Amino acid sequence: MSHALQKNSIALFSLTLLLMVATTADGQSTTDLNVMPLPSKVQMGSGSLKIDGAFTVAFTGVKEVRLDRAGLRFMDTLHHRTGLVFVHRATDPSHATLVVTTDHESKPVQEVGEDESYSLEVSSSGAKLHATTSLGTLRGLQTFLQLVAITPNGFAAPAISIQDQPRFPWRGLMIDVARHFIPLDVLKRNLDGMEAVKLNVFHWHLSDNEGFRVESKKSPKLQEEGSDGLFYTQEEIRELIVYARDRGIRVVPEFDMPGHSTAWFVGYPELASGSGPYQLERKWGVFDPAMDPTNEKTYKFLNEFLGEMAKLFPDQYLHIGGDEVNGKEWDSNPKIQAFMKSHDIKNNEGLQAYFSQHVQEIVVKHGKTPIGWDEILVPGVSKNIVIHSWRGADSLSAAAKQGYRSILSNGYYIDLGWSAARHYAVDPMGGSAANLVPEEKERILGGEATMWSEYVNWENIDSRIWPRTAVIAERYWSPQSTTDVASMYFRMEAEGSRLEWLGLTHRTYQRPMVERMAGDAPAAQVNALLWLARVLEPVKDYNRESLQNEEPTSLNPLNRMVDAVHPESEVSRQFSVSVDQFVTSSCKDSAKAAALRSQLLQWAAIDAQVQPLAHTSSLVQDAVPASSAFSQASEIALTALDRINQGLPVPEALKKQQTDALAAFETQAHKSQLTLPTLAAFQKLVDASGTGGACTASK
Amino acid sequence: MSHALQKNSIALFSLTLLLMVATTADGQSTTDLNVMPLPSKVQMGSGSLKIDGAFTVAFTGVKEVRLDRAGLRFMDTLHHRTGLVFVHRATDPSHATLVVTTDHESKPVQEVGEDESYSLEVSSSGAKLHATTSLGTLRGLQTFLQLVAITPNGFAAPAISIQDQPRFPWRGLMIDVARHFIPLDVLKRNLDGMEAVKLNVFHWHLSDNEGFRVESKKSPKLQEEGSDGLFYTQEEIRELIVYARDRGIRVVPEFDMPGHSTAWFVGYPELASGSGPYQLERKWGVFDPAMDPTNEKTYKFLNEFLGEMAKLFPDQYLHIGGDEVNGKEWDSNPKIQAFMKSHDIKNNEGLQAYFSQHVQEIVVKHGKTPIGWDEILVPGVSKNIVIHSWRGADSLSAAAKQGYRSILSNGYYIDLGWSAARHYAVDPMGGSAANLVPEEKERILGGEATMWSEYVNWENIDSRIWPRTAVIAERYWSPQSTTDVASMYFRMEAEGSRLEWLGLTHRTYQRPMVERMAGDAPAAQVNALLWLARVLEPVKDYNRESLQNEEPTSLNPLNRMVDAVHPESEVSRQFSVSVDQFVTSSCKDSAKAAALRSQLLQWAAIDAQVQPLAHTSSLVQDAVPASSAFSQASEIALTALDRINQGLPVPEALKKQQTDALAAFETQAHKSQLTLPTLAAFQKLVDASGTGGACTASK
Repeated sequence: MSHALQKNSIALFSLTLLLMVATTADGQSTTDLNVMPLPSKVQMGSGSLKIDGAFTVAFTGVKEVRLDRAGLRFMDTLHHRTGLVFVHRATDPSHATLVVTTDHESKPVQEVGEDESYSLEVSSSGAKLHATTSLGTLRGLQTFLQLVAITPNGFAAPAISIQDQPRFPWRGLMIDVARHFIPLDVLKRNLDGMEAVKLNVFHWHLSDNEGFRVESKKSPKLQEEGSDGLFYTQEEIRELIVYARDRGIRVVPEFDMPGHSTAWFVGYPELASGSGPYQLERKWGVFDPAMDPTNEKTYKFLNEFLGEMAKLFPDQYLHIGGDEVNGKEWDSNPKIQAFMKSHDIKNNEGLQAYFSQHVQEIVVKHGKTPIGWDEILVPGVSKNIVIHSWRGADSLSAAAKQGYRSILSNGYYIDLGWSAARHYAVDPMGGSAANLVPEEKERILGGEATMWSEYVNWENIDSRIWPRTAVIAERYWSPQSTTDVASMYFRMEAEGSRLEWLGLTHRTYQRPMVERMAGDAPAAQVNALLWLARVLEPVKDYNRESLQNEEPTSLNPLNRMVDAVHPESEVSRQFSVSVDQFVTSSCKDSAKAAALRSQLLQWAAIDAQVQPLAHTSSLVQDAVPASSAFSQASEIALTALDRINQGLPVPEALKKQQTDALAAFETQAHKSQLTLPTLAAFQKLVDASGTGGACTASK
Repeated sequence: MSHALQKNSIALFSLTLLLMVATTADGQSTTDLNVMPLPSKVQMGSGSLKIDGAFTVAFTGVKEVRLDRAGLRFMDTLHHRTGLVFVHRATDPSHATLVVTTDHESKPVQEVGEDESYSLEVSSSGAKLHATTSLGTLRGLQTFLQLVAITPNGFAAPAISIQDQPRFPWRGLMIDVARHFIPLDVLKRNLDGMEAVKLNVFHWHLSDNEGFRVESKKSPKLQEEGSDGLFYTQEEIRELIVYARDRGIRVVPEFDMPGHSTAWFVGYPELASGSGPYQLERKWGVFDPAMDPTNEKTYKFLNEFLGEMAKLFPDQYLHIGGDEVNGKEWDSNPKIQAFMKSHDIKNNEGLQAYFSQHVQEIVVKHGKTPIGWDEILVPGVSKNIVIHSWRGADSLSAAAKQGYRSILSNGYYIDLGWSAARHYAVDPMGGSAANLVPEEKERILGGEATMWSEYVNWENIDSRIWPRTAVIAERYWSPQSTTDVASMYFRMEAEGSRLEWLGLTHRTYQRPMVERMAGDAPAAQVNALLWLARVLEPVKDYNRESLQNEEPTSLNPLNRMVDAVHPESEVSRQFSVSVDQFVTSSCKDSAKAAALRSQLLQWAAIDAQVQPLAHTSSLVQDAVPASSAFSQASEIALTALDRINQGLPVPEALKKQQTDALAAFETQAHKSQLTLPTLAAFQKLVDASGTGGACTASK
């Protein structure tokens, strides 16, 4: 090893340390605290606890079967993460490296607001985790796992003192299993991910126009006719509920009604307001079919069905949906119109309120608390219900003001492809909620990230959920002042690595998908396609719908580039950060310029490798507009960079031409339903060109 | 898209086509026949069968539950491989795209030599698979799956006519689950891989010095004391046997004795020839403990145990091991010495033969056929046994000559890190077997790849088995004349991609392992470490043993670079092929030179990125000798390449110096237990330097 290399190493090592300086909520510097969500109170100690094959854990205090299982799972995860082989699977507290003490059992059915606090003390001689209930123990074990990292002397956890508890009691992830059925094992690995980042509610969106996914023994045509055979048996559901409880996660089922309910009507058309017959929807959006609120048989059916489900799902809450009813079937049914007149119901909102009230009564009768999308918040509705805000954050605070408990999903729609930073900036206590009085604020229970499944299946769903949902989980758990975006991204990527050891596939899914597109092409071409996949993103919000030649359906394969790219490209983000640093520094760093140049050269060369693949693979053809646009945009950025480096003047006309070209390339990429997330950075290089040179040039 | 790019694409496209020209056994050119193992008879048709969401399969002929399951599995695999969504899971034969006809049921317990033949006809209008038994059907379904590929017009299978049957009836993979316990799900995914390449024997090496991995209900201390709690329950074993049978795979259990049996003695020291007490071995190799062949209680115990196992495992064959007894416990036990004298047993070989004969009689008494490692072939042993040749191929033909059936594993030890080409060159009918008369040749049943597990666990075992075992499977299945190495490598890589869709992790395992080593380092450093992992290989044969500072044990973590690198680096192989083409062409191709140069530049830069990681991670420290050696060796190759390109003369003294340096770098890499597989190619560049120039220089 040469001395030059040695020096180089030290410089880079310092950079690493710098990056690892995160800040906790109260602004203290917490070097090396690579934890997500950040704990509410942290005191760094000195030294660290070595983790090697002799590591042991012991549990004291209250006995609970799930703590035994948590202990085994903890050791398995530690083995996976480190590769260390632990001889002793269990030991007595006097000899254990980590001693876990739990004071009390938690509730037989997990409740909203149950104590999840814990304290964790790590020193060079051992570690102690203490929690009031086993829920807190589960949370603390995850924090300990996150602390373990490789060091120059093997694996270790830093000496630290943590006091931690969640900011919100309702911290959820919703998964829609209707548009695309999501297999049980995929749900399980996502519950593992939820546990890792301390989420505590799995909201299971079980029915929609495209599928009814629960076995009903009382009304079996629901799943028999309404699911293409893709549903969960009651045994599987019970299995998942146990799995979730083991991880301190509540399972809240949703049966969306009176709209979003076509799948019910395939087997039971008599529930609908139209004349039928009904078929499963293959497209998505808002459809006409809706339950008939004027028919007593509807409520009889729902009473029986919800009674069955109330027994199957132990959680106190039952989600009744209630969103997006277009009312067309109601308008065109004379019997319903007559009913409305005779009952003095003025409009469809009134009719939905009538339906909603009846269903809420049924739910309450079966011992549950109803929760529904914010449409169900109408004057006079019982204060017992929970409002799930999706149309805007204002309904959240409005509900709280009126005395309703509420949770927020607006701003946490992870299907829309937003950046982690954008989700991170959304706070349940932000906006109008900030002006609520304390008593009202207490009614805001938390939030849920929502994974709508129009464009996800078993293969890419993990990549749409993770790692961004870890950031949303931090928003729900950590103090409101936890807002450092650079620290967030560093810790999100680290958590992304750790989550893979749980079996999540949010990183590994991509290469096989790209190889599927490429077929058995030469490595250089496959690699180019992979680089393309790493740097592009799907178009955002609902733009994918409008950018397709044919209307999408649930039978369309999800095997194209738009399905394979990450919602937020880490490569693009890092490039953009580098460009920001480069263009804003008065004296241009030549090493930085060289790194940017090398990256742009690679990108500019991608399309020449991708083009031949378009001749052998229909799946690649689809990505060619984006590939070509991206490589050409990279060429423009390269030209701009070179002019900056050479300190050359740039005519405004050329800049204008380049700016227009970049915008056109973005439009071209949309033909592949893709977007170029580096475009803003490319534009910054164009803007900066001709305005002064690199140091070497200006000297 | 520019015209220049367009031209470029076409050139590259032609190259792809060239690469895809494989040759079948009888030498006919079979463009696009990307199948492994190659069928015995192939006739390419014209056109292709489109595979889209409307694809259906129907089964006719004999009904068998496992064919129903095979059909579901077939559709699942097709979905995974293509991403296509199939609406119809089953259909009637008159409408099906693929009609499968099976004439007869196969045997209730799969037998050696059962008919596995099938014929497959694919045309643009549909496909027909026909087989005499369901075994042939299973084989043919796999061939069909391999034929499906992406084309410019979506997925398709080429029009083709195939008549196929195996060359050998015994085509096995042995997995040692003693040195490292291999979880059931890992075994299952490897059975999926076996089915894909038409292997039909899973040889389960269930006991050894380091562990006894089967639940015995009659002698429970075997697993209770002999397994660290890591064993398969009888229920799990039955589950695996069903799983294997579904895939046309026999399960042959092995209980190695009288040596390799320390794990038995932890619970039952009375079986041993020494005085005990015994503990599980943590190291590996040949140890002293051996069963006491002179004690009637040994045979009583074995009779009971093997009787239990004979019921648990339905296969006709039961492997009794018999290898590597050092005899030391026998030598030092006066009672045993006295017994030998009184029974006129002259030496330890004779004593082992005495033991072996008794055990064989027990096995036969329980209705099974014994198979054992070639040590059990001693004069007078019953002709009914099968000889498993591991010490050398000669014992295979010797056994056949003497009237014994035999299988070959010598040459198929996939734990030794050999290249696929080296295994491919080993043929059960090669060497002295070539001179056998037909009747003797028929006694050679086939072979087994052996996965000894000293250095594998759940995490990297797939990468040691796949894709190289696909090549060995081709050796066992395809005609002997199938020997084209270039075609083999192309098809092996393609099969490697396909195997991943079954859940095998032989490619995906690597990046997480590298990230574990790197910790949360900057992307540039992690990428460099990944490039290093892709280009290096573990030292071969048993050299890892001698190159370690401390004796390895099963408690050592397998989390270092040597555990993460592929046994055969595809990147290195392709580089070496390119160098061969470059140095042997009289007129040096400048595009090729540029590609080699760019690769060498990347490699030369690796160490500067890896060095800083060594300051943050103990796991990377271990790889630094190899990293440094590799980057410096790449520098030498780069210098040589540049001199070739510039047509510069090179003094012999410099060449000598470079040659010595390269050799020294290989030695240095051994400190990391790694080898530099590109070294021969580097040397070729050095040798070629100064001997004439590139075209541009010589013009």
